[in-house]
Amino acid sequence: MGDAVKLKRYLPIVDWLGTYNRQTLTSDLVAALIVTIMLIPQSLAYALLAGLPPEVGLYASILPLVAYALFGSSRTLAVGPVAVVSLMTAAAVGNLALQGTQEYLVAAVALAFISGLMLVLMGIFRLGLLANFLSHPVISGFITASGIIIAASQLKHLLGVDASGHNLLEIVQSLLARLDQINPTTLVIGVLATGFLFWVRQGLKPLLIGFGLPPRLADLCAKAGPVLAVAGTTLAVWMFGLVEQQVAVVGAVPQGLPSLTLPSFDMDLWQQLFISALLISVVGFVESVSVAQTLAAKRRQRIEPNQELIGLGSANIASSLSGGYPVTGGFARSVVNFDAGAETPAAGAFTAIGIALAALLLTPLIYFLPKATLAATIIVAVLSLVDLGALKRTWDYSRSDFAAMLATIALTLLQGVELGIIAGVTLSILLHLYRTSKPHSAVVGRVPGTEHFRNIERHEVQTDQHILTLRIDESLYFANARYLEDRIYELVADNPEVEHLVLMCPAVNLIDASALESLEAINDRLCDSGVYFHLSEVKGPVMDQLKRSHFLQQLNGQVFLSQFEAWSVLCQPASDEPSQAVKPTPLEPDVRALSADEPLPPESPALR
Amino acid sequence: MGDAVKLKRYLPIVDWLGTYNRQTLTSDLVAALIVTIMLIPQSLAYALLAGLPPEVGLYASILPLVAYALFGSSRTLAVGPVAVVSLMTAAAVGNLALQGTQEYLVAAVALAFISGLMLVLMGIFRLGLLANFLSHPVISGFITASGIIIAASQLKHLLGVDASGHNLLEIVQSLLARLDQINPTTLVIGVLATGFLFWVRQGLKPLLIGFGLPPRLADLCAKAGPVLAVAGTTLAVWMFGLVEQQVAVVGAVPQGLPSLTLPSFDMDLWQQLFISALLISVVGFVESVSVAQTLAAKRRQRIEPNQELIGLGSANIASSLSGGYPVTGGFARSVVNFDAGAETPAAGAFTAIGIALAALLLTPLIYFLPKATLAATIIVAVLSLVDLGALKRTWDYSRSDFAAMLATIALTLLQGVELGIIAGVTLSILLHLYRTSKPHSAVVGRVPGTEHFRNIERHEVQTDQHILTLRIDESLYFANARYLEDRIYELVADNPEVEHLVLMCPAVNLIDASALESLEAINDRLCDSGVYFHLSEVKGPVMDQLKRSHFLQQLNGQVFLSQFEAWSVLCQPASDEPSQAVKPTPLEPDVRALSADEPLPPESPALR
Repeated sequence: MGDAVKLKRYLPIVDWLGTYNRQTLTSDLVAALIVTIMLIPQSLAYALLAGLPPEVGLYASILPLVAYALFGSSRTLAVGPVAVVSLMTAAAVGNLALQGTQEYLVAAVALAFISGLMLVLMGIFRLGLLANFLSHPVISGFITASGIIIAASQLKHLLGVDASGHNLLEIVQSLLARLDQINPTTLVIGVLATGFLFWVRQGLKPLLIGFGLPPRLADLCAKAGPVLAVAGTTLAVWMFGLVEQQVAVVGAVPQGLPSLTLPSFDMDLWQQLFISALLISVVGFVESVSVAQTLAAKRRQRIEPNQELIGLGSANIASSLSGGYPVTGGFARSVVNFDAGAETPAAGAFTAIGIALAALLLTPLIYFLPKATLAATIIVAVLSLVDLGALKRTWDYSRSDFAAMLATIALTLLQGVELGIIAGVTLSILLHLYRTSKPHSAVVGRVPGTEHFRNIERHEVQTDQHILTLRIDESLYFANARYLEDRIYELVADNPEVEHLVLMCPAVNLIDASALESLEAINDRLCDSGVYFHLSEVKGPVMDQLKRSHFLQQLNGQVFLSQFEAWSVLCQPASDEPSQAVKPTPLEPDVRALSADEPLPPESPALR
Repeated sequence: MGDAVKLKRYLPIVDWLGTYNRQTLTSDLVAALIVTIMLIPQSLAYALLAGLPPEVGLYASILPLVAYALFGSSRTLAVGPVAVVSLMTAAAVGNLALQGTQEYLVAAVALAFISGLMLVLMGIFRLGLLANFLSHPVISGFITASGIIIAASQLKHLLGVDASGHNLLEIVQSLLARLDQINPTTLVIGVLATGFLFWVRQGLKPLLIGFGLPPRLADLCAKAGPVLAVAGTTLAVWMFGLVEQQVAVVGAVPQGLPSLTLPSFDMDLWQQLFISALLISVVGFVESVSVAQTLAAKRRQRIEPNQELIGLGSANIASSLSGGYPVTGGFARSVVNFDAGAETPAAGAFTAIGIALAALLLTPLIYFLPKATLAATIIVAVLSLVDLGALKRTWDYSRSDFAAMLATIALTLLQGVELGIIAGVTLSILLHLYRTSKPHSAVVGRVPGTEHFRNIERHEVQTDQHILTLRIDESLYFANARYLEDRIYELVADNPEVEHLVLMCPAVNLIDASALESLEAINDRLCDSGVYFHLSEVKGPVMDQLKRSHFLQQLNGQVFLSQFEAWSVLCQPASDEPSQAVKPTPLEPDVRALSADEPLPPESPALR
């Protein structure tokens, strides 16, 4: 790889800056304008969800976008505060400090820094695969449950009561206990805003198209709905003096840009935030990279997952250094960015300028913005994340994936986000091991007149009472090594006349050290029982690894290239006196195994 | 299964008691006598290792043997106290109470009960597969490290000093600090006993054969070596009054049979012992069942792993009820039992009677037995468990298995047995996921003139610039689902002229819900990029599962029975104007996928 390519890889800006022109600039500016309008209410709302002052949401939408534009590999991903990560931040920091205190803010800022550091390190050490441990059903269940918790947690703002709780039960109990304290004015604002936002999602676009707007423009205008709700309800509160009716509003927001500060380096705090930061990093990365890949594929561009880690990590570090909290790539705003025509990460930098201008100029205007409107924005956004239908689809497809999904949803709802995701990951790993610990296997026989061997229970096949062939349909590793032993000992104990046992391995992609020892044990024990142990159709890479052990020397039978070859060599001519006729001619162990040591000529296609 | 067979399965005694006769009785009695002679010093020594009074070792060798004879499925397994489980008991109980106190004994007895209960429950719920999570390298590393720790921990008895510690560092430090307190008489006894026992292992058998004894008898006599050492050193201490020279002896051991008592049901204690009991149960079970299987295979008998759990569980419960501590099947004594001709579990019951007689009659004789002799017995026994060569063999065979083994050894030595085994299990699971998260895959092409498709990097094969075929050599599940996506997007981004991507699946044994979503995402994104996505050689069970999803309806390409079929259908006649000629004829998605819905006739051997 040339130096230029390397540089491009680690600093993707080099890739596009050279070809930047007026047309690209125009596209990026338009996209940035639209994303800025969408992002302002979202930043404020998600900061509220995270239990942080509203300006923190704005701060998390300025420098992080610039950092991602420099280091991220996606052309169109829009980073910033998102719902699920905000909820996780609230859960993590809520364990350590009270909302509204300085400690709470310090912990949230430190969380962004630790998470950013982790992401950068994961990127440098190419550990993006850590995200693989989150299976799709676990993520899907987690997002669904988070959406439900977030929506429930925002109801208090809609009702104008003061409730709290880290899981669904606590939240619902807390709400029910305060139903008598509902603020009617707030409720009216909240319900109207929610209704309006749902209508905007469904009804505004067809209406605008009806008015003659092109569909794409209509779609983008509909995305600006939250801004209309924000402006309308703020005006209403101001004009009718609703603050006097105890409608909670955002209030005074510091005007100006964030000041650069170092996060806390209190190691006790870091230790307490470690697990939370890891979970936030992995969940944020998984969400972000899947959005980025979806968009990149539409233009046949490429995402480099390890570079994405560095991009997201630097965005979080930038967020922390400018008083923000954890950020990641957001789904809705990235799609808007893409649809609005963003062509390069510069669009993200322009959005950052837009938000900076808003922080400088617009904050006095949002004094009267009702919290109920922000809550409505959140509720409408997160309910689109809730996908209970996935439960049914997963149930239909795979029971064990369903179990992992259900456990994730139930534990997230009842015990909170961190326990939910940890339980889901653990369960999906254990279920995978369980599932592969009893692999599918079949005793096979020859389909008459062919060289094919099939399951004797499903097909009419030829067998020989002295030869047993077991096909195993899974890689052999520690979780199923003992199962293989049990299965073979059982077969041999049930078939006392067997003299040859052939293990047919076309589906064995790997034999680990545990399975190797099991094969050695099987070989020894079959030897003790007077049975020859053979292998057939062992794959090339597996054979290469077996040659690095002593197994092939110890094997008391042979390794056959194909099962048909095994059958042809081992099968005795039919006889009426089996006890006499079947005494096998002395085998020469290893002859074939050793001959397989030679590199295969390319014209021998049977062995891969 | 008939009722008689069922009964046989759950109460294996029914299987052999009917055919019991004088010849079987004689064989069993002889074996029992030899095992008894071997077991007496072992019981005393392992109790010492576990930090318990010597009589507890005897108690753990009476009722447990009877219980196993009733419920165990092995004909020849000899249960009782063993070295590794004794060490684990000391580690578990040592956390809660001081050696020599009543609380220590109570905790050890409760540990046996909890472990027994767990084993029985695991047997009833057929959870023997829990043992599968212990990979061979982890067990092997654990046993090796335990052997080293045990040997080191016994050095204090050989030196006659008072040292302690739960890991190798602590033990060695503690010993070095007390080198000036060495008791010379004890050291002489210890060194002589150790030397004698090593000689007995190596030299006695050839000597006895030289004297004209048949080899098998010579072998069995050599196994009685420890008894000679015990008798000799006890006599020496008594005759020369060595107690006055501060030689530590076993001292007064209560004469008589254990009294039956209930273990402690203090739930706090149970909770504290829970993890330890689980580890002891699993390690004990794994060790025991592997010995039992080795011996059973030699006589083509069968072990029922879940019945073994019940047998070992009832042995532990019996141990607890009679004041004993955790037991399991021992390797050396089972081999002796087998070689001495034991034919049924009755041999175990007769051994129990032998040990009971010893407890009744012989305890006064062991007053002067030096602890150094017992330590020598332990050291010689456990050093045979240490297998550092396994490190080299595992390194040669598989780096990731080596890493798990090394971590287990290092952590067991440095941090103690429980952390060592937990770390080993965790690491081997993570490494397995890691290893399968980047599966082997190859772009394949057609071997000219054949229907075979091979790796384009290894073979001279035909390819078509509009068709890319990727063969993936692993089941598709959450750990590698994203890798597959990345790989395919990369391939498509690198080959802009591609119009068909075929995923060849002969080695895919499973597609879980995560991988299904990845396939759906791949399909959507390839669709967006104008590329058809096809599958070939999908296995029967995998195809069955895919039919339970909507994937096959959404697939924008086809499912081909064989890769050759895919090639024949997709390959365009050669042309000089690729941009014109390659426009694919409109495909009818799902036609083949749907036709594959019909049950396959048995004469169609291509699809399994």
